[in-house]
Amino acid sequence: MKNEKIPYKIYLEESEMPKSWYNMRADMKKKPAPLLNPGTLKPMTAAELGAVFCDELVAQELDDTTPFIEIPEEIRNFYKMYRPSPLVRAYCLEEKLGTPAKIYYKFEGNNTSGSHKLNSAIAQAYYAKKQGLKGVTTETGAGQWGTALSMACSYFGLDCKVFMVKCSYEQKPFRREVMRTYGAAVTPSPSDTTNIGKKILAEHPGTTGSLGCAISEAVEVAVGSEGYRYVLGSVLNQVLLHQSVIGLETKAALDKYGIKPDIIIGCAGGGSNLGGLIAPFMGEKLRGEADYRIIAVEPASCPSLTRGVYAYDFCDTGMVCPLAKMYTLGSDFIPSPNHAGGLRYHGMSSTLSELYDQKLMEATSVLQTEVFEAAEQFARVEGILPAPESSHAIRVAINEALKCKETGEEKTIVFGLTGTGYFDMVAYEKFHNGEMSDYIPTDEDLAAARAKLPAVDL
Amino acid sequence: MKNEKIPYKIYLEESEMPKSWYNMRADMKKKPAPLLNPGTLKPMTAAELGAVFCDELVAQELDDTTPFIEIPEEIRNFYKMYRPSPLVRAYCLEEKLGTPAKIYYKFEGNNTSGSHKLNSAIAQAYYAKKQGLKGVTTETGAGQWGTALSMACSYFGLDCKVFMVKCSYEQKPFRREVMRTYGAAVTPSPSDTTNIGKKILAEHPGTTGSLGCAISEAVEVAVGSEGYRYVLGSVLNQVLLHQSVIGLETKAALDKYGIKPDIIIGCAGGGSNLGGLIAPFMGEKLRGEADYRIIAVEPASCPSLTRGVYAYDFCDTGMVCPLAKMYTLGSDFIPSPNHAGGLRYHGMSSTLSELYDQKLMEATSVLQTEVFEAAEQFARVEGILPAPESSHAIRVAINEALKCKETGEEKTIVFGLTGTGYFDMVAYEKFHNGEMSDYIPTDEDLAAARAKLPAVDL
Repeated sequence: MKNEKIPYKIYLEESEMPKSWYNMRADMKKKPAPLLNPGTLKPMTAAELGAVFCDELVAQELDDTTPFIEIPEEIRNFYKMYRPSPLVRAYCLEEKLGTPAKIYYKFEGNNTSGSHKLNSAIAQAYYAKKQGLKGVTTETGAGQWGTALSMACSYFGLDCKVFMVKCSYEQKPFRREVMRTYGAAVTPSPSDTTNIGKKILAEHPGTTGSLGCAISEAVEVAVGSEGYRYVLGSVLNQVLLHQSVIGLETKAALDKYGIKPDIIIGCAGGGSNLGGLIAPFMGEKLRGEADYRIIAVEPASCPSLTRGVYAYDFCDTGMVCPLAKMYTLGSDFIPSPNHAGGLRYHGMSSTLSELYDQKLMEATSVLQTEVFEAAEQFARVEGILPAPESSHAIRVAINEALKCKETGEEKTIVFGLTGTGYFDMVAYEKFHNGEMSDYIPTDEDLAAARAKLPAVDL
Repeated sequence: MKNEKIPYKIYLEESEMPKSWYNMRADMKKKPAPLLNPGTLKPMTAAELGAVFCDELVAQELDDTTPFIEIPEEIRNFYKMYRPSPLVRAYCLEEKLGTPAKIYYKFEGNNTSGSHKLNSAIAQAYYAKKQGLKGVTTETGAGQWGTALSMACSYFGLDCKVFMVKCSYEQKPFRREVMRTYGAAVTPSPSDTTNIGKKILAEHPGTTGSLGCAISEAVEVAVGSEGYRYVLGSVLNQVLLHQSVIGLETKAALDKYGIKPDIIIGCAGGGSNLGGLIAPFMGEKLRGEADYRIIAVEPASCPSLTRGVYAYDFCDTGMVCPLAKMYTLGSDFIPSPNHAGGLRYHGMSSTLSELYDQKLMEATSVLQTEVFEAAEQFARVEGILPAPESSHAIRVAINEALKCKETGEEKTIVFGLTGTGYFDMVAYEKFHNGEMSDYIPTDEDLAAARAKLPAVDL
């Protein structure tokens, strides 16, 4: 097996790196539903969005017709610091599993942010700088996005204010310290530095916070500060656009060796990694040029695609953001405290939601103990300690490879390995000590959260 | 500057990876002094060493005539999981410094052990497996070597017992947890599981341990357990041999673009990284084919080359190991508790000591606050959070680049970036909070430690 011509790691040359991002929406016949103004229930205009987001990012957010958008040279130069990322042939994992399947993973963890999040962070920081802004605000949960944005802002000399979900802030002091190394100001959320934070603290004393709440605080500070805008690390169309660099590199690397994948697998929280990884493949599917099985993997404890509803919902707890049509569990939904790592957002990218609704991709959910089993198995043979988020994709890739073992099919499986787990050792420790539990929300839990969906009927 | 043909990262093809390690000693006219039996003061025989180390590693340890030793295919395949490592052109750092110098760094941190240590760990585990052993024992200080060995043992299905210096064990629970992910048993040292540990605990109650002490415990367990041998992550000739893969790749990458370095810089604790990085360059120097400035950088708090003596000394606190002739501070020397990270061994590789004594390389020492300043500056522009150890080399590379700025010289500087600092955030936090201090041992401190050197006069 090891004598095949395909190397362990396929690296593109710098000259082969993508020069444009790919915008899936341009090839969708039925487009994702627009963001709505929560007051008027009319589609958000560029002017309205411009109060919150950078102008050029607003243009990208609203553009559902241009298939390729050029990557500015400054961003391409930054990408060269840590990209192209390797497409790895998982020879050792295949051998360990005894599967005839061919497994590849696109590894995005070889940068200090530890994940793919840097791909969009640097783009958003660049446009903020270009607009002459002083700084940006954001939220972070597990900490990967906040770290990535800190790095990007440090590079362009922008101020960076991060609201970090309080339970993560307390459990992950090292994440906070990395952000400080890059000069960011990190505030645990909910905080008493914002009106919405004070309100949430008053209503829920002792709350350990949620992404939805941290988003509300970050938006409030951005809108209320001269020269600041808010940036978001997932869910939005612009983020999926920037992350398409993952999929474009993956496809270029596969094409170089004439490899056509059968199955493409990615973990899905807000959809940034999955949307980026699948972009060019989904493009072929949308244009009728090729077919692939595409699988979104989400935690059983936060199952927006597999158990949510497709409806307009608030993007944040404080209801200060536009409404988005998406698969959602309701903006009040917070995964059980025993849930480790990210993938804890109540909703899902509108684009991915629409593609899922059109049955162009599948979704499945997995239990976290099964996820950590896969993570450990993978670490031992592939030498990379995966992030809990990424390990959701590993779990399903292993499951599919084991199915091939039963049937004898030599399927080609590609999955996204979004990042590393260096800052998730508390969760690994729980797993090693047998203290990790699983959680599946009951139908009653979900119904209660859904009851608070806004009444939008278009 | 960015339009030059040299890419940000030079990756070799798998086919260009070294197939042999390079043994500097073969080209040394005056060889490093042999290890001595502490009882007889005679050179250690292969049979004597074989009680502690694997047979094939003993052969490598004693071989000072064979210049190239083939890398077994199994090891080369493992190397392909995470090698070749990139040789990075530090364009962003150069721009930030405004220097005409051209700076390159060989980055060894893109693997889960987080450092170059894996290069030798996998080799040592391979030979242990080949010899049919059940397992190996070792010590670890900052934790990089223990992590690397855990990964390597997990890959070959060997048992792995790690004695971790107690202060690191307590300060770095996440390091311990990574080792557990790879199935290693980790014991804080000194422990009550060995005779030497009990003795040290009795003599120094409340001690937080040292590398020298952990080595003694690991050797005791290896020698006393059927089917076990001891392995070491630095200092030894065999380790420098395996680590030559760093230098060989570096040289191949430079040669590909016709680049000849003027200065080569590496941090030096026991010498594993420095010895590996400089190997082929020193080879050219030894054979009179080329000349390079080679600089070893050590912490001011543990200055074995710059302030030690060149003499036979014990390799460990318990005095169970052979005597080595090396630049040493005395086997009782323990760096001040405020010293962060590794590079805390009292001695230095015999080979590097001899090369230094022959004035074939320079040495300098740096203060840790200066080191962390350089680390943060580097992280902000190059996007990699460096390990404290590696940052010693960064500090001196920046200093040399700034000298070039003054003189206008376009020197080419190559340094070794041995690893990442993800598990060193406690030290970074101290630095951010202004709580980091410097320590320089007094002449009296050093004289006291030196007074205990064994009386060996050959």
